[in-house]
Amino acid sequence: MTMENLIAHNNKNTLIPGEVHLVGAGPGDVELLTLKAWRILKSADVIVYDRLVSKAIMDEANPKADLIYVGKQSNHHCVPQAQINNLLIQQARSGKKVLRLKAGDPYIFGRGGEEAQELVAANIVFHVVPGITSASGASAYCGIPLTHRDYAHSVTFITGHLKQGELDVDWRSYVKAKQTLVIYMGLKSLPHICIQLADHGMGSDIPVAIIHKATHNAEAVVTGTLSNICERVVMAEIEPPAIIIIGEVVKLREIICPSNKDKRQYASQ
Amino acid sequence: MTMENLIAHNNKNTLIPGEVHLVGAGPGDVELLTLKAWRILKSADVIVYDRLVSKAIMDEANPKADLIYVGKQSNHHCVPQAQINNLLIQQARSGKKVLRLKAGDPYIFGRGGEEAQELVAANIVFHVVPGITSASGASAYCGIPLTHRDYAHSVTFITGHLKQGELDVDWRSYVKAKQTLVIYMGLKSLPHICIQLADHGMGSDIPVAIIHKATHNAEAVVTGTLSNICERVVMAEIEPPAIIIIGEVVKLREIICPSNKDKRQYASQ
Repeated sequence: MTMENLIAHNNKNTLIPGEVHLVGAGPGDVELLTLKAWRILKSADVIVYDRLVSKAIMDEANPKADLIYVGKQSNHHCVPQAQINNLLIQQARSGKKVLRLKAGDPYIFGRGGEEAQELVAANIVFHVVPGITSASGASAYCGIPLTHRDYAHSVTFITGHLKQGELDVDWRSYVKAKQTLVIYMGLKSLPHICIQLADHGMGSDIPVAIIHKATHNAEAVVTGTLSNICERVVMAEIEPPAIIIIGEVVKLREIICPSNKDKRQYASQ
Repeated sequence: MTMENLIAHNNKNTLIPGEVHLVGAGPGDVELLTLKAWRILKSADVIVYDRLVSKAIMDEANPKADLIYVGKQSNHHCVPQAQINNLLIQQARSGKKVLRLKAGDPYIFGRGGEEAQELVAANIVFHVVPGITSASGASAYCGIPLTHRDYAHSVTFITGHLKQGELDVDWRSYVKAKQTLVIYMGLKSLPHICIQLADHGMGSDIPVAIIHKATHNAEAVVTGTLSNICERVVMAEIEPPAIIIIGEVVKLREIICPSNKDKRQYASQ
């Protein structure tokens, strides 16, 4: 038996020393990291991170950590999920404290569940840290409450990623009063989404907001209605990543948006 | 003109020095505070907080801050929302840095929107800080991803608070495949919810999880199905506050729940 085999054999029935932390980095603003995420960011040996984790956050990482970029870009070559899973397992097996850092929350459109399943199958110890999901970040920073007793009793998050050019979505269920609809990663599907919602009975005057890079310095917001938002997005040259918020709550932005408020304050000085 | 009137008159057209921070405290674990919430918690002059903000978090507050409890308890006398709004305005007008601390996220069933509207009307400067919503906290800590490519393409948050003994809910829209349903503050309505979902076609074997005090030390979880969860909740003597997660994703808990995993790890030692 070689030394390598011996180690492998011994490891088989013992606790593997490395571990993986599946951590939500929040929407972008460094100050929206949780204390727990911050602590792990400062102490990890290896950080496996996505494209949407902001540079400002990565600048705060443990300077001794190995940083491994596994970002996906739509229409570009990306690291397959199976390869990411293997990377996490291999790094943990080498005894490292591995931080798998994801934008937003790992269990809301973050594939954290899939990675957790693979880690369990590989007998790797792991921990999950929730993050501020993009919808919440956009909501707070843009003055659009996701629920409100007068305007929305529920909020639904869906993904706008197309499968064979179609969204696998029960559109009818999303067309109802007093509901907020948030679409992640849906900017490229926006024309399709607007047509489908209109075809299933949503009023053309329902307010819509598009938030590009919510909570980042480069945050940009375009608002309109179901009937004119596509045109406005083109005019404003908004690019992904962006989140879409649809519903009466979008109207509140005019009243309670922090920047609007500041303008009013300054105007009254 | 009295001195008081003079001050009031002068203030009318100038920037009011105090300000309000509407901040999400997250689900309970101190380490799930954001860095921004932590900073404000340590520097606020006045902290107006709810019942569901954990004691562990309040223990971290600026020791010099005035702590004002405005918690609501169902079936008990509670501070009316209008009184809370006035309190925030009065404290800010007296020049204080006011922290309005809410469990979870201020814009998801937090009435943050209503408070923001009142602050705008009163010309008070305010800022909003998102928090980890209870659904995310429960999800991460209990091994129940809210979305997963194999089991749920969307997640909907609704409130379980009854209005005149009924929930104002379009039940049919919540009965569909590949969706996770999260009900906040719904434990008392659980029998009503289960009956309505079954009557509108949800399968009796759909998995359901009840999470009491998610992420707190006192966290407790009961799982079952639409047909037996009510009985199990009674047997386990689960009390509010609790969050309800309904959908196929609940099954993943058996595989990826941190404590299950730990048990497996220990068993293999």
